[in-house]
Amino acid sequence: MTERLYIYDTTLRDGQQTQGVQFSTPEKIRIAEALDSLGVDYIEGGWPGANPTDSAFFETAPATRARLTAFGMTKRAGRSAENDDVLAAVMNAGTASVCLVGKTHDYHVDTALGITLDENLENIGASLAHIVAQGREALFDAEHFFDGYMANPAYALDCLRAAQAAGARWIVLCDTNGGTLPGEIARIVGEVIAAGIPGSQLGIHTHNDTENAVAGTLAAVNAGVRQVQGTLNGLGERCGNANLTSIIPTLLLKEPYVSAYETGITHDALRGLTRVSRMLDDILNRVPMKQAPYVGASAFAHKAGLHASAILKDPSTYEHIDPGEVGNSRIIPMSNQAGQSNLRRRLAEAGLEVAPGDPALTRILERIKTREDEGYAYDTAQASFELLAREELGQLPAFFEVKRYKVTVERRKNKYNHMVSLSEAVVVVKVDGEKKLSVSESVDEQGCDRGPVNALSKALAKDLGRYSAIIDDMRLVDFKVRITQGGTEAVTRVIIDSADGQGRRWSTVGVSPNIVDASFEALLDAIRWKLIRDVAPAAETAGAG
Amino acid sequence: MTERLYIYDTTLRDGQQTQGVQFSTPEKIRIAEALDSLGVDYIEGGWPGANPTDSAFFETAPATRARLTAFGMTKRAGRSAENDDVLAAVMNAGTASVCLVGKTHDYHVDTALGITLDENLENIGASLAHIVAQGREALFDAEHFFDGYMANPAYALDCLRAAQAAGARWIVLCDTNGGTLPGEIARIVGEVIAAGIPGSQLGIHTHNDTENAVAGTLAAVNAGVRQVQGTLNGLGERCGNANLTSIIPTLLLKEPYVSAYETGITHDALRGLTRVSRMLDDILNRVPMKQAPYVGASAFAHKAGLHASAILKDPSTYEHIDPGEVGNSRIIPMSNQAGQSNLRRRLAEAGLEVAPGDPALTRILERIKTREDEGYAYDTAQASFELLAREELGQLPAFFEVKRYKVTVERRKNKYNHMVSLSEAVVVVKVDGEKKLSVSESVDEQGCDRGPVNALSKALAKDLGRYSAIIDDMRLVDFKVRITQGGTEAVTRVIIDSADGQGRRWSTVGVSPNIVDASFEALLDAIRWKLIRDVAPAAETAGAG
Repeated sequence: MTERLYIYDTTLRDGQQTQGVQFSTPEKIRIAEALDSLGVDYIEGGWPGANPTDSAFFETAPATRARLTAFGMTKRAGRSAENDDVLAAVMNAGTASVCLVGKTHDYHVDTALGITLDENLENIGASLAHIVAQGREALFDAEHFFDGYMANPAYALDCLRAAQAAGARWIVLCDTNGGTLPGEIARIVGEVIAAGIPGSQLGIHTHNDTENAVAGTLAAVNAGVRQVQGTLNGLGERCGNANLTSIIPTLLLKEPYVSAYETGITHDALRGLTRVSRMLDDILNRVPMKQAPYVGASAFAHKAGLHASAILKDPSTYEHIDPGEVGNSRIIPMSNQAGQSNLRRRLAEAGLEVAPGDPALTRILERIKTREDEGYAYDTAQASFELLAREELGQLPAFFEVKRYKVTVERRKNKYNHMVSLSEAVVVVKVDGEKKLSVSESVDEQGCDRGPVNALSKALAKDLGRYSAIIDDMRLVDFKVRITQGGTEAVTRVIIDSADGQGRRWSTVGVSPNIVDASFEALLDAIRWKLIRDVAPAAETAGAG
Repeated sequence: MTERLYIYDTTLRDGQQTQGVQFSTPEKIRIAEALDSLGVDYIEGGWPGANPTDSAFFETAPATRARLTAFGMTKRAGRSAENDDVLAAVMNAGTASVCLVGKTHDYHVDTALGITLDENLENIGASLAHIVAQGREALFDAEHFFDGYMANPAYALDCLRAAQAAGARWIVLCDTNGGTLPGEIARIVGEVIAAGIPGSQLGIHTHNDTENAVAGTLAAVNAGVRQVQGTLNGLGERCGNANLTSIIPTLLLKEPYVSAYETGITHDALRGLTRVSRMLDDILNRVPMKQAPYVGASAFAHKAGLHASAILKDPSTYEHIDPGEVGNSRIIPMSNQAGQSNLRRRLAEAGLEVAPGDPALTRILERIKTREDEGYAYDTAQASFELLAREELGQLPAFFEVKRYKVTVERRKNKYNHMVSLSEAVVVVKVDGEKKLSVSESVDEQGCDRGPVNALSKALAKDLGRYSAIIDDMRLVDFKVRITQGGTEAVTRVIIDSADGQGRRWSTVGVSPNIVDASFEALLDAIRWKLIRDVAPAAETAGAG
């Protein structure tokens, strides 16, 4: 006998309150699709009317199994719900569900809104009734509920009852300031249920200001709420919202939750969790947090010698779950014997079979370590990892040699007296004993200058002799730049994602204090990886220079 | 009537199990001094004999008010405590307190140690008795206690009793694998106390594998334990240990803890918490986590417009504590969520007083929205925000005009046949009616090419007429690049952090499909912001071209 728990994601709305985070509309669409693949029940898409990106997202939102929800606030005092333009903009997004935030703390009604307590109750009731009258599912976010309840429990409950009486499907108890500890949350949820709002109608929305957002959420579930609000990777204002990336696996894998509840998320979808979490970091150009529970690169890394040796006998000795359940994997330091078997598995994935104990394995491990100290990152750039391994194994054809390059960026006035820029690159390569000079500029179809890396990429691809036809279907799909530490100096790390007409997608890395050099190194690796796959093997001599 | 809670820090031991973390001895000394200034009760310094750095630390450890504690493991079976060389090395560190970890989970005794359950009990009892006999304070870390208790409660309790009987001052219940949820921790602590080990003798040691380490610790305190183990910034194996940087302010500032307990940490010392946390990141060369509870740069940052306007009336409306209590401060950033009051406050901070209702406010907000849609980000780049506002307010002196620039990156073989790169920039500016051409290359003191942005920055600064002397103390301290969406096309966003000799630090932003253009725009903003501050106001005409 399990009860249904509903997962409500607000990455696109409350998550966007994170300092420095501003999703574009295409990014919002990618995130919504990922959330839907995970199987959350609700996707809060933003506040239509509050900013152009949110409005644009609702206009172009993908069809999702999850209920797409528009967020807004209860109507203002002194006008009807029908005549409130802010509310009208929210309704105009046309979503099946609408969530409105409203005050429940008497002090805020007085200080922030400057209206009477009764006016606020009327705002809540009339706004939610308006949503229901329009045939939408209505949700009420009870802002500052816990602080409000501690200050004036009767009034805070009256606010909830106003929403309930208006027909709200969900009443979400929000710990807006993030200061309420889990024990207090449990007590207050219990009192709310005892006061007549059933747990099947209650949601919980916590923030991480005391590092207890996940625990507060679980405490509320234990006390009876049946909707959980949070964000991917715990994005959100200040210290973030409750982290769904931690809550979801706990609900699906840990007791007492496994036996007591079911969600819309399957175990198969759960195995996509690590990928979804890293995709979000990728969109934000953030380094994924290694220590992140469940999905972090270190979450199943065993450094202590005692731990590592026990893990080899039985993983459950130092792991609370199987990392594969969340799409993560175990890491045992390279120094350990297990380092070599991990490496062999990775090489086999790239089609390189190496016998156990081959001395090249040690050389590869050492070279990876040295290069990672210099700023390279091979867990993302799998294609560059493969090239490095091939070099040590004597399985890297030379293909061509770059003799030199030169790239120029010039910015000046054009004939219409507008400042415009132009990038131009010259690349000199030697292919099959023949020297070839190519030049290219970086202007796209719209006449817009795409910069020096684009110009270099075009010039490099322009004439590689018999290889040019092979790389003709390659394109650069993403370009990530990060300043990192290489030894004692800051260096630039560039990661390039490439794709081709056969549906392949691969990542390469370059590192240099000079951003153009770093980009060029990653570009070269991208082309070499493609050539390894598509040049007839007999045509090349491994290791030839 | 308050009870004493003891804080036990293990940053230097369990914190060092973090992937990628290896403290040097001088770093350990700095961290120990910082912990002592904070007022923790115990500093676990490492495992003497297990690695050279730990042994060296104990030899040179500073005198601390906190009890310096050596960590080790219980003796092995088949020998006496006196004859165990691993234990001898721990005792030889000569600390007043010694903490030994031992098994309490029957499965581990069998699988990992391969000894009988009775032998393990003897190991615990004899080892702790040995510490006490040497006149030291003895602590027992009960490894895997919660998992062990769930598997075999009688045996797990027997292990604790063996330590208790031997005279251990503290028995620390460890959730080694980090999988026990707070509710279960509370229940089991209650049962341990009921079984005769008093809370005044119990400690708690949790890990963050479900993001509940802080909550599990608080649950154990609520259930009666009186010693709390954790690490600064939550360092530690896998997902880290319980984060003392979050637990300490909760214990000192939040109910029910404030009324129920006292610690060795004063409110004055607590105001050093943010500094201590950032010092540790500094040692680790990590970017401090913005979202960190209490101490993060975003912990008191208010992005939502509704929040920001209420904060202006009363900070307690959206803050659970006063940020000054932990040495942190409030931030109200600019973003497309910002309201006019937020905007006016930001302007006032930049010395721009604007009357409420001034139509420039609307223009500024609209321009910010438009530019953020193009890919700009003004909550980070406060200085570029100020320049944008000044432009709308007619308070932006022209200073100088860039007529054109050209930058070249060339990579070729040098006379030693090594591939080397060189970047060179030419910038043409008009200052006070005079045209000036400057050229610069980007080679640093080590002869290393720092790339085109560095070359442009040098050339631009080289001759700005009477402004050159003013910007002479400026330097570029950080450079961040990301690809973002500007409308429908991918564009590059560059954020540059600059600093000057007067201790100022400011951030500017540039956006373009061309990374060099984007960088140049951010560089220009950085210089203009500096000139606004340091050029005598009378010398300029606002808005002059």
